[in-house]
Order: sequence, then structure tokens, then C-alpha cells
Amino acid sequence: MQKLKEKILREGRVQGDHILKVDNFLNHQVDVDFLNEIGQEFAKRFTDAGITKILTIEASGIAVAAITAQYFRVPVVFAKKAQSKNLDQDVYRSQVFSFTKDQTYQIMVSSKYLEQEDRVLIIDDFLANGQAALGLKDIVEQSGAELVGIGIVIEKGFQPGGQILREAGIRVESLAVIQSMVEGQIVFAGDAG
Amino acid sequence: MQKLKEKILREGRVQGDHILKVDNFLNHQVDVDFLNEIGQEFAKRFTDAGITKILTIEASGIAVAAITAQYFRVPVVFAKKAQSKNLDQDVYRSQVFSFTKDQTYQIMVSSKYLEQEDRVLIIDDFLANGQAALGLKDIVEQSGAELVGIGIVIEKGFQPGGQILREAGIRVESLAVIQSMVEGQIVFAGDAG
Repeated sequence: MQKLKEKILREGRVQGDHILKVDNFLNHQVDVDFLNEIGQEFAKRFTDAGITKILTIEASGIAVAAITAQYFRVPVVFAKKAQSKNLDQDVYRSQVFSFTKDQTYQIMVSSKYLEQEDRVLIIDDFLANGQAALGLKDIVEQSGAELVGIGIVIEKGFQPGGQILREAGIRVESLAVIQSMVEGQIVFAGDAG
Repeated sequence: MQKLKEKILREGRVQGDHILKVDNFLNHQVDVDFLNEIGQEFAKRFTDAGITKILTIEASGIAVAAITAQYFRVPVVFAKKAQSKNLDQDVYRSQVFSFTKDQTYQIMVSSKYLEQEDRVLIIDDFLANGQAALGLKDIVEQSGAELVGIGIVIEKGFQPGGQILREAGIRVESLAVIQSMVEGQIVFAGDAG
């Protein structure tokens, strides 16, 4: 998605060789108009896929998933990260290791909100090591629903998540794929679209 | 908001005398069409208020804030709860005690995303004891921006948050105010609109 690449080049900031900060439009401050363009792009790529539910993970996936869901006219379910008093006991659980926060946490989805008949699109802001996506995939499989694909705003192509998921046979659509960020220089993979 | 009250009565579940679960449309599974009606209602109530930014807190405020922001055409900023490696050092911080999770946590907003000229609308899914809203108010005040009001989807009128905020002179617009939930019976305050 050309406009996304331009926005990353204009507004993103690279820290070290691995961290790309896009918190001025994607995951701290949210540019809602731009998220609508992202949502439309996901809808275009997954048109006719029969999606019945969008699944994401709190917190930074929620905004992009909610805006995107408007173009599919389906509910969003967001996986929760910690045991809260208010959460149902009847849940699907998985473990996720976060390299950003250097810790393992449990994610949960109430079993009421994923059904065997569901055709699920996972949406997230970033794909790097793929841990969050693998945890969500695990939860979809537990529910018996079908994982139709994964829509990612920014994939870090130099980290293994995308390859792991694609080799597992999952359709991954990333709107921008970053090949490298060495010395602050963002290089996109040619096929990012 | 009559339609919200009806939805709460139809789909909400009361646990004990204090917990209302609306996680089938608001804060676990998200009914995006309905959130659009909520967003329009907030826009109607705060029309001509000159809002330049919507502020919320992760995680369950993000969906309603992002959808609502579409009707104001302004960015959303969501306060983050924990120190992540990726967050700026230059941040406003406040402390919030969560009765739901029985713990105190720190919330942070990067100072870049709240400016002195901003006119801020805080949006959140629930108002109960008001701790999250007071933390966000504190952050808005640190930034020098103006807190124009607080838009809440569901206010628990039998808990003190609403009174504390209104007595502090803040305009609080709650789309449904619950007066009591004794023995599973939801009673709305008459003036909830």
C-alpha cells in the first residue's frame, strides 16, 4: 500500500535496527481517517472471503480492527491479556511471548465469541516474531472456527513471523513489508503492494 | 440513549450487585455498527465544542474512542498502561487504581500528543469509581490542554465517579446511567437521556 509506505517514511522513526515507532498515527495517537483507508484496503484484499468475525489482541490492534470491521460489517473480538475479575471462566487461552516487553503473558477469548461456523480474519498493527499471531491462531483452532487469513499493517520482513505463518499455510496480507531498517534507513520489500 | 438502555437490558448480564457484563457488544466482542450509533450520539452532545482530540485509555476504551473520533474528524490518543521499551521517555504520567483488577497502575501519554492548544474529549466505556477518568484528567492538566468534557457509554450511578467528576466542574455525558443493579435488576437513572 503505497500511501502507507510514504506515511511510514515521513512519520516513522527508527530506533536501533529493530524498532520502528509509528505511534503518531497507528498505536498511541491514532489517525482515524488514515485507518479508514487501511480498513478499505483490507476489505479489498479479503473481499469474497466470507469473513464473519475479526479477531485482534489488546491493546494496539483494537483501533485498526474496529475501523476495519466497518468495511466487513462483522463484529470484532479482541483477545484479553490478563485475568480480570470480570472475564468469563469459559475461555480459550494461549501463551504469547512478547519480545518488546520481554515477558510471557496469557491471552484469552471467551468461548462465546468464536463459533465453529466462524470464518475469522486476524488483524494486527505489527507482525515481527509472530508470537501474538500464533497465539490468536491457536485460539481460533481451539474454537473450531476457520482462520481465513491475517491482515497486518506493518510487517517486519527481517523478523521470522511472516515466514512462520506463511509456511504454516496461512494467508498473510501485510500492507507494508519492511525489509531492513539498518542505520535508520527503511527499505521496503518490493512486493509489499 | 434509549437504544443503549434497551441493549443493556437485553444483552447485559449482572454479576453480584456491582458488575455489569456487556462484553458481547462493548468490551470484548465489539458491535461496530452499534458503536457507530454511540459515536454519533457523542458527536451530537459535544457538537460545537471545538474538540481537537479524543483521549482514552487502553484497552476497552479504544474501540469506542476510535469509532467516535470519526464523527469529530480528530485523532485519538490512548493512554498506555505499562512501561514498554518502545514508549518515549518524554511522557505525562498518572496513577490509577483499578477496583476491577485490585491494583494500581501507571498510565502514560507521550507529551507530543497533547498540546496546550488542544481541546480534549475523554471517552471511555465505563464510569464507576472514576479512577481512570481522574488519571486522564490529571494528564490533560499536565499538558496544559483544556478538558472539554467526558463521554461515557455506561455510568454506574451508584458508584462515586460521576459525582466526583461533576463536582470538579467537569461536563460528564453518560449515555446510560445505572442507578442500581440489586438482585440482577437493572434500574436506570431517569435522566440518562
